[in-house]
Amino acid sequence: MPRTAQLPEIPFIGTLQREAGPLSRQLAQAMRDAVARGELKPGEPLPSTRALAEALGVSRGTVVEAFDQLVAEGIFSAQHGAGTRVAAALDRSPASRQRERKTVKLPAKVKAFANIKKEFAALPPVPFAVSVPAGAAGPNEVWRKLGNRLRGGDAAPAGYSEPQGVLALREAIADYLRRSRSVHCEPHQVVITTGTQQGLFLSCQILMEDSDSVWVEDPAYRGITAILESIGFKDSIVHVPVDEEGIDVAAGIEMDAQARVAFVTPSHQFPLGMPLSMGRRKALLAWAEANQGWIVEDDYDSELRYAGHPFPALQGLAPERVIYLGTFSKILYPSLRLGYAVVPDALVDAYVGARILMDRYPPTADQYVLAAFIKEGHLDRHIRRVRGVHAERRAFVIETLERFIAPDLAWLQPSDQGMHLVLWLAEGLDDREVATLGREAGVALRPVSSMYGGSRRPSGLVLGFSGFEDKAIEDAARKLAEILKTLAD
Amino acid sequence: MPRTAQLPEIPFIGTLQREAGPLSRQLAQAMRDAVARGELKPGEPLPSTRALAEALGVSRGTVVEAFDQLVAEGIFSAQHGAGTRVAAALDRSPASRQRERKTVKLPAKVKAFANIKKEFAALPPVPFAVSVPAGAAGPNEVWRKLGNRLRGGDAAPAGYSEPQGVLALREAIADYLRRSRSVHCEPHQVVITTGTQQGLFLSCQILMEDSDSVWVEDPAYRGITAILESIGFKDSIVHVPVDEEGIDVAAGIEMDAQARVAFVTPSHQFPLGMPLSMGRRKALLAWAEANQGWIVEDDYDSELRYAGHPFPALQGLAPERVIYLGTFSKILYPSLRLGYAVVPDALVDAYVGARILMDRYPPTADQYVLAAFIKEGHLDRHIRRVRGVHAERRAFVIETLERFIAPDLAWLQPSDQGMHLVLWLAEGLDDREVATLGREAGVALRPVSSMYGGSRRPSGLVLGFSGFEDKAIEDAARKLAEILKTLAD
Repeated sequence: MPRTAQLPEIPFIGTLQREAGPLSRQLAQAMRDAVARGELKPGEPLPSTRALAEALGVSRGTVVEAFDQLVAEGIFSAQHGAGTRVAAALDRSPASRQRERKTVKLPAKVKAFANIKKEFAALPPVPFAVSVPAGAAGPNEVWRKLGNRLRGGDAAPAGYSEPQGVLALREAIADYLRRSRSVHCEPHQVVITTGTQQGLFLSCQILMEDSDSVWVEDPAYRGITAILESIGFKDSIVHVPVDEEGIDVAAGIEMDAQARVAFVTPSHQFPLGMPLSMGRRKALLAWAEANQGWIVEDDYDSELRYAGHPFPALQGLAPERVIYLGTFSKILYPSLRLGYAVVPDALVDAYVGARILMDRYPPTADQYVLAAFIKEGHLDRHIRRVRGVHAERRAFVIETLERFIAPDLAWLQPSDQGMHLVLWLAEGLDDREVATLGREAGVALRPVSSMYGGSRRPSGLVLGFSGFEDKAIEDAARKLAEILKTLAD
Repeated sequence: MPRTAQLPEIPFIGTLQREAGPLSRQLAQAMRDAVARGELKPGEPLPSTRALAEALGVSRGTVVEAFDQLVAEGIFSAQHGAGTRVAAALDRSPASRQRERKTVKLPAKVKAFANIKKEFAALPPVPFAVSVPAGAAGPNEVWRKLGNRLRGGDAAPAGYSEPQGVLALREAIADYLRRSRSVHCEPHQVVITTGTQQGLFLSCQILMEDSDSVWVEDPAYRGITAILESIGFKDSIVHVPVDEEGIDVAAGIEMDAQARVAFVTPSHQFPLGMPLSMGRRKALLAWAEANQGWIVEDDYDSELRYAGHPFPALQGLAPERVIYLGTFSKILYPSLRLGYAVVPDALVDAYVGARILMDRYPPTADQYVLAAFIKEGHLDRHIRRVRGVHAERRAFVIETLERFIAPDLAWLQPSDQGMHLVLWLAEGLDDREVATLGREAGVALRPVSSMYGGSRRPSGLVLGFSGFEDKAIEDAARKLAEILKTLAD
């Protein structure tokens, strides 16, 4: 039976428990905490070891040992003759930490990275936030069963694993991509990533020298331009305009024919949504071949096509020039953090090496679950189902927006793929202002203008349509319509 | 009933199935694949649309549509009058890919990153590989049960989540670190990482300007020096010597007092194993305060202490100057890829922002499982148990090595923590040569000399002792003894 009861408590120390290990260590920890909490103030004198030992009902040796440890740690100071005190130097009170913090000289990059956090803060899961997974459409039950089945075996927690990703998953993905996207690949070219973002980050690390310039689409996914800015390439970014055929390759060549890398979204331009035309595809590949440049193809949502046949992946036409990136965040669960890069043979080892330095290995358990999910045909079935679900939501959002919003105030950019739409705003309507008013009204909106890097910054909104109920969509559309109307008047 | 049977197969196309979607699309895909597989050769003429339509028992329109698509994609070319051929430009035969690859100009970094992959290749799980999880000691059953319990709720697959990590886990970790390591932290300072490697990578991105120099221990964990080399800081690395008290702060100040960051392993120097003495701790903190420098404390294996009390974390003495890194790879499962950084308030947002650009979010499911594992007391129990298991293995390895290896050929570096030991080799014995011979004999050895960056490169081996049976350890020790003896003679 614990003798706790018999140990008197004194305020700043709390209870010592004989069964919880060496008392001297407990006592030292308790006093450390008291100092940390500011209950023992810097310079404050401590009771004599004898008095404290009596108060605590422990041997004096125990207290001496604890005091010595804290003196050694510089938390207490023992002045000859003057007994032991809390060290004056070591002031940990909140107020002083505040002062300290003010005087700390911060690295220049701190502000930039802190702004990234702000910019990428998720919107609340209300219309029209993008990529809210269609809850009901999720294959949760199948996924859970597969997990339970495998978690005793392959997917059991284990030691260090393949930095490139487990073979079973790389095989399943290679097979899936050959079938569904005409991607030209073998499992040894597939690098499992934590999603498109990591694929982009790795590409930036590997493909570019300090002197290189790089093409990005204008507008572009902030996930790529923000990386380039953060690694010192802000002035090396060539913002190549996008028109109804996608990225304007001729314009890019005119702006900077020597660029080393082109980051593109050929199947569904992000954010505008048009596919890259075949003419442009050929021009882009010709440019890359002639220039020994690399093309990073971000194929983030090609599974979700609602009309016509998708173009096969660019990668299939030039597997030696194209790094193909995909993710399961859109079609399955963002929380999985599983995606892939299909990399030319000559670059595979470099991608694996760079990934080792970033995070060593991808977690293994869900890789096995996903591999089984694909091989057993669940993914194909799920895609067919979820495509239907999203198509229906998409139609409803389009119909609702057109019902509530006057066509002279805003109109939709044509697109037949993905989980979002772009709503262009009439002359004079500032998309950032609309987004702010939206937030206050409980409507989640992303301004398009912030995705432009060139001189042209048209005003529009990126609207997600997945995962919301009719009523929520109608309310949001009504509020958005009011906001636009008020601003226009 | 499928009419497959009535569709004759022709070699390069395979079977078309009416119930499997548009025939023109199937046909185009089949021909694409045939080209990819090299069954249709570049320049090869194709049958007329009429002949092929008859052979396949489909309408001629279907074939024309498929041909048009492939011509549009540049896979086929239609010469006026000469019918349709496989495009000559598009040569995808393995031989030609080989040729192409040879002519591809590769980025300079490719070689460096590819070498990283080689250097970090895992050793086979035989003695004396490091950090092989003690299988039997793993809490697999508890872990699985927790997972099954939570996977229907919190840990169910979901949408995008907290880039900083889920609050439940950050709370559990903050509480655990305050208790066990005297780390001074609140949940809002905890950033969930995929392990120590990501914590180091983030620190390198945030804390250093291009002009800054940085202290690393000599010898040091290659995981940090390799990052610094890969991001262009090779010449900014100050290799500060380590002696029996740990990193020699005075020497560091003499070498470069202005360094911006010091990467250290105070509780158990990697790889040598001594703790940083209290005197050195104070000197290091004083240097950091005076110099407005940052200390990155890698506390990778402090849970595994076999004698005496561990020093509390350096972070507890200067929470505003120290970035504290920890991982669950050593004490739990490497395959989880879960660790943490405890970051000064002023840097939290920057760490989160930088992590967003690397991989957006950590996977969520296992974060909830781990949070419950800690909160319900399983981690503390597991640490107590696994510590005993490792201590026993450690004692056996030490005893065995001393039994087989002559003390004039090799001797152990004293250490009372962690999952590895360092065996110093006698003058004239080259540790890289020993490691190579070891590999051939089926013994996994890491040379210490490769972890040194300064002028001194003593010869020794890093030996892991966890997760191996007596017999395997004895065999490996015997082989190692023979290798050393042969080389010494």
